[in-house]
Amino acid sequence: MALLPGAARRLLCSLFLCLWLSTLARAATRRYEWEVSYQFKSPDCVRKLSATINGQTPGPTIRATQGDTVEVKVRNSLLTENLAIHWHGIRQIGTPWADGTEGVTQCPILPGDTLTYAFVVDRPGTYMYHAHYGMQRSAGLYGVVVVVVAAAPGAKADDAEPFAYDDEHHVLLNDWWHNSTYELAVGLASVPMVWVGEPHSLLINGRGRFNCSAAAVPGTCNATSPECDTPVFAVVPGQTYRFRIASVTSLSALNFEIEGHEMTVVEADGHYVKPFVVKNINIYSGETYSVLIKADQDPNRNYWLASNVVSRQPATPTGTAILSYSGDRAPPSTTPPTGPAWNDTMYRFQQSVATVAHPAYVEPPPPRADRTILLLNTQNKIDAHTKWALNGVSFTLPHTPYLVAMKRGLLDTFDQRPPPETYAYQGYDVYAPPQNPNATTSDGLYRLRFGSVVDVVLQNANMLAPNKSETHPWHLHGHDFWVLGYGIGRFDPAVHPASYNLKDPVLKNTVAVHPYGWTALRFKADNPGVWAFHCHIEAHFFMGMGIVFEEGIQRVASLPPEIMGCGETNGGHR
Amino acid sequence: MALLPGAARRLLCSLFLCLWLSTLARAATRRYEWEVSYQFKSPDCVRKLSATINGQTPGPTIRATQGDTVEVKVRNSLLTENLAIHWHGIRQIGTPWADGTEGVTQCPILPGDTLTYAFVVDRPGTYMYHAHYGMQRSAGLYGVVVVVVAAAPGAKADDAEPFAYDDEHHVLLNDWWHNSTYELAVGLASVPMVWVGEPHSLLINGRGRFNCSAAAVPGTCNATSPECDTPVFAVVPGQTYRFRIASVTSLSALNFEIEGHEMTVVEADGHYVKPFVVKNINIYSGETYSVLIKADQDPNRNYWLASNVVSRQPATPTGTAILSYSGDRAPPSTTPPTGPAWNDTMYRFQQSVATVAHPAYVEPPPPRADRTILLLNTQNKIDAHTKWALNGVSFTLPHTPYLVAMKRGLLDTFDQRPPPETYAYQGYDVYAPPQNPNATTSDGLYRLRFGSVVDVVLQNANMLAPNKSETHPWHLHGHDFWVLGYGIGRFDPAVHPASYNLKDPVLKNTVAVHPYGWTALRFKADNPGVWAFHCHIEAHFFMGMGIVFEEGIQRVASLPPEIMGCGETNGGHR
Repeated sequence: MALLPGAARRLLCSLFLCLWLSTLARAATRRYEWEVSYQFKSPDCVRKLSATINGQTPGPTIRATQGDTVEVKVRNSLLTENLAIHWHGIRQIGTPWADGTEGVTQCPILPGDTLTYAFVVDRPGTYMYHAHYGMQRSAGLYGVVVVVVAAAPGAKADDAEPFAYDDEHHVLLNDWWHNSTYELAVGLASVPMVWVGEPHSLLINGRGRFNCSAAAVPGTCNATSPECDTPVFAVVPGQTYRFRIASVTSLSALNFEIEGHEMTVVEADGHYVKPFVVKNINIYSGETYSVLIKADQDPNRNYWLASNVVSRQPATPTGTAILSYSGDRAPPSTTPPTGPAWNDTMYRFQQSVATVAHPAYVEPPPPRADRTILLLNTQNKIDAHTKWALNGVSFTLPHTPYLVAMKRGLLDTFDQRPPPETYAYQGYDVYAPPQNPNATTSDGLYRLRFGSVVDVVLQNANMLAPNKSETHPWHLHGHDFWVLGYGIGRFDPAVHPASYNLKDPVLKNTVAVHPYGWTALRFKADNPGVWAFHCHIEAHFFMGMGIVFEEGIQRVASLPPEIMGCGETNGGHR
Repeated sequence: MALLPGAARRLLCSLFLCLWLSTLARAATRRYEWEVSYQFKSPDCVRKLSATINGQTPGPTIRATQGDTVEVKVRNSLLTENLAIHWHGIRQIGTPWADGTEGVTQCPILPGDTLTYAFVVDRPGTYMYHAHYGMQRSAGLYGVVVVVVAAAPGAKADDAEPFAYDDEHHVLLNDWWHNSTYELAVGLASVPMVWVGEPHSLLINGRGRFNCSAAAVPGTCNATSPECDTPVFAVVPGQTYRFRIASVTSLSALNFEIEGHEMTVVEADGHYVKPFVVKNINIYSGETYSVLIKADQDPNRNYWLASNVVSRQPATPTGTAILSYSGDRAPPSTTPPTGPAWNDTMYRFQQSVATVAHPAYVEPPPPRADRTILLLNTQNKIDAHTKWALNGVSFTLPHTPYLVAMKRGLLDTFDQRPPPETYAYQGYDVYAPPQNPNATTSDGLYRLRFGSVVDVVLQNANMLAPNKSETHPWHLHGHDFWVLGYGIGRFDPAVHPASYNLKDPVLKNTVAVHPYGWTALRFKADNPGVWAFHCHIEAHFFMGMGIVFEEGIQRVASLPPEIMGCGETNGGHR
C-alpha cells in the first residue's frame, strides 16, 4: 500500500505487479564496510572498553529505501572474541542465513574474519541492529536502521505515509553498566548468581551523564569529555517532527517523554498504528516507535527529553537530552520528567492495548490458528543455577547452528524432542512463586508446518521471590506477528481467545508480557528458515528464556559456506 | 641416556633399540579433561575475572613419564571468546598441529567446541602450558608440565639423572594485573599507546598479596580470602629438594631467591646443566629451571621465597611464599629478599653465560650453520602505533594458520615474500634510538631447508626513548636450540662467531637477549611443521615481535580437520 504510485500507473498495472515494478525500478544496493573493535569510550563520562563499529558506539545509522539491498561487510577486529550482528525487524525473506543470530542461523565471525550480510529491506519503518552473540550487545554494539518509503518517481515520499512531518530525529535508548559483559555474564552463571545490579546510566543516542563523584575507580570519570555531551535535538518553531525511537536496553523497560510536548504515536516496529496521543511512551527492549511532535511551545527556552526506568524499582538516574528551538545547548532549568510510577502496570498495559493497526493499513489476521503454543515464563533453579524457562524447559543454544544442522541433516547436534506445547495451567497460580522451581534444559526446537498459522500465548508469573513479576519483551525473528490480546492473570484457553482482537491487531516483532499477565499473538509460518523467539532482556535470553521455530527448511536455498565453521561443521569435516 | 636399563638387557640389545623398546613397554596415555571458563578469582586478594581450567588458575599440573602420550580434551566455555593452548617446551615431533599456537598451527577453539590435544612427551624435564591466543595467557590460563625420567623396571628414577634429591616442589611465577586482558591489549593498540603500567602483583603458584588499602575499586579486595593465602613449601631438615621453577610472566623478568638457602642450578628448559651455585636465580618469561636446595638451616624459623622484578625499574612489590621446616605457616619476621639491583645487567648476563650443558649430557652442536639470520629487535612506529619489529618488519599473524595454509596450498593467505635475513648492521648504533623509527608489517615467514642448520643472532638495541633497552626472552616452538654465545653491544658477523661455545652449549627453548646485547643460537630444522619464534613478553609478541619458520611441510601428515575452520578454511569452502 505504501508504494501506491501516481494515477497514470495505477491504470496500467495491478497493485502487486506495480509494487514489484516500482520497487525493482528504484532498488539500490547500500554498501557498508564495518570494522568492529574494542575501544575505550566514555558514553556516560566513565571510561570503559566498548564494542564499536568503525570506532563508534552506537554504530552508524543504516538508511535505505524500501526494496533496497543492504550489504554490510563486517570485519571482526575484537582480538579474541567472536561476533554476530542481528538486523532486528528485518524479516530476511529468502536470506535466513543473514539473520545474524549465533547458534541459530550462523556460526560466529572469528577475529580477523569478514562476513558480508546482504538482505533486502522490503518494508519501510524503523528498525535496529545489534550484536546477537552471548551478551555482546551490552558492550555497545548497536545502531538504527531506517527504511524509507519508496516514492513513485516525482512523488514526495510522505504521500505514501498516513501522516506528514517536516523533519525527523532518531532517539536510540539504552542502559549501560561500567562492568564488562564478561563480568555480567559470569556473575549470572555463578552459584549463587551474582547480579551486577541496576544500570549505572541510561543513554540517549549513546550518551549519558554519570555522577563522577560516585565513580568506582578514581580517574576514570571525566565530566567534560565530549563523548558524554548531552545530545541536543534542534527544532524549528511550528514544524512537525517524526521522532524514530528505538530501545536496545539490556534490561530496562523505559518510559520516554519530551517535556511539554505531547506525542502522537504513528508507527510501531515498522507498522503504521492508529494514531493516539500520549504524554510519554513506554518502550521495551527491542521495540521501535515513531511519534510526531509539534514544535509549538515557547521557543525561548529548552526542554528535556527524558528516559526513565519503569517496571523494575529504578536505581538509575533519568537519562536526558535537550530539545532546543534556538540552537542553544543549555540544560533547561526545570527538573527532567520522572515518568509514571515505576510499578503502575496498568498504565503500561493500557498503552499496549491502545496500540492497534492504522485503519488504512489493517492486514487482517487469519481467523484461526492451526496450532497454539502456550508458554509459561518462569524463573527456575537448575543445579543451583538461576535460570529462566518456558514450560519448565530452559533453552540452551546448540554449537552447530540449527539452520546449518537442519539443512545438512546433522540431527544429532541438538535434541530432537520438541519442547512442550503447553503447561498444566489449570492448577497453576501465577501470583505465587513456583511450587517446584526445578526445570530442565534443552536445545530442542519447535518445527512448524510450512504455511500454517501459529498462536503463541506467553504467560507471565511470579518469580522465585514472592511478590515479584517482571515485564518480558519477546522478540520474534523472521516475522511480524499480530498482537491479538493482553490480559492480567492466568490465561484460560477456553475463555480468553473469544476476546481476541481480530479486527485491527497491530503487527509487531517485539511485544511486552506484563507482570502477572499474558499476551497472545499469531503469525504465519511462511518464511523458510530457523528463527529465534526470545525475551529481549539480554540476561534473560542468556539464562534460557527463549525458543526456536523451524519452518520450510527444505525450501531454504544453499547456505553460504561463510556462515559455517563451528560445532559439527568445524574444519569442514561433515 | 636417561633410559638405560639394567645390565642384563644391556647385553641383549643395542642402545637405541633398547631405548625404543623400554619406552614402548612402559608408555602410557595420560588423559585430562579440561573445561576452560571465566570465573571470579582473587589470586592477589583482588577479585578479578580470570580464565580458569576446571575452575582453577593456575590449571592442574600435568605429570607424565618420558615417552607417554598426553591427551588433553579442552572444552571452551569462555562464552564468546576463542582459545588455544600451547605446550611450551614440548617439541611436538610428528604432531605439529598440536602445538596450540593460534594463527600458526591451528584455528582457535570456538566457545562450545572441544579440541583434544594429543602429543608424546619424549624428553624428561620441566615445562609449562599456557594460552597462545591474543593476550589470553595474561588472564590466568597457564600451568606446569612435569615429565619424569622413564626408569628401567625395578630401577629408581633418579639413577638416570645426574643428581639426587628427596622430594620436589613446583614454583610457578607470574605477574598479574587487575585490568582485563582486553584493556591491556586495546591500550597497546591505541594511538597514542596506552600502557597499563607495571604489574599490580607478582604471583607464586597463582597467589600474591595486594595491599587492599590501595585497591582501586572498594570492596573488591579481601585480604582474608583463602585464594590469596601465602603458599607454604614444607621441607624436612636435612633433606634435599628439587625446586622446579617456571616463569609464565606477561612482562616481567624475575629474580627468585629462597632466603638463607643457596641453590644449585641443575636443569634449564628440560636439559641438564653443569651444576652451579647461586644465591638467587634470574628467570625470564618462558624459561624453566630446576634447582636443588638442602634443608640445612635453623628449622625453628621460617624463610621467605621471594620473586622480584629485574631489568625494568620495579613498581611491583616482592612476590612471596614461605619455606617451612616445622609446618608452621607464619611469615618470617625478616624482610623478604629484594634481589639484585634491577639494572645490574652484567649480573644477569653472567648467569646466562654460566648456563652450559652438563658434562655427561653434552649434545654437540653441528660445527657450522647452513644459514644465518641476523635479527635486529627494535621498537618502532607504524601509522602512529607503537610496534616491535625485526629488521624493520613487524610481525602480524595471518587468519588462516600457516600450517593449514601451506599443507593445502592456500598461498594467497599470507605474504609470500620472506622477511629480511639481516639488517644494515655496519652503520647501526645499538645504543641510540632508531634514526628511522618507521617499520612495515608482514605475515611472511622464513622457509628453512629441511635438515639444514640455522643460526639466529638476536640483536637488541635502544628503544624509542633514549637510554632504554629491555630484556627480551625469545622462545622457539618445536625445537631446542644451542645457545652459542652472548654479548653486549653490536654483534659483528666477522668477529663474534669465533668466540661461540661449540663445546658444551646448553640446549634451551627460551633465551634472554640482554639490554643492548646479542644472543646467538643454532638449531637443526629437522621437525616438519611451522613454528613460531618470538619474544615471550605477551605485549611484545602482540605488537609484532616474532617470526615464523617453516620446515619439511611436505613431510607433515594429514592435518586433523578440527584445527581448521577459520580464515580461508572457514565453512570448509576451500
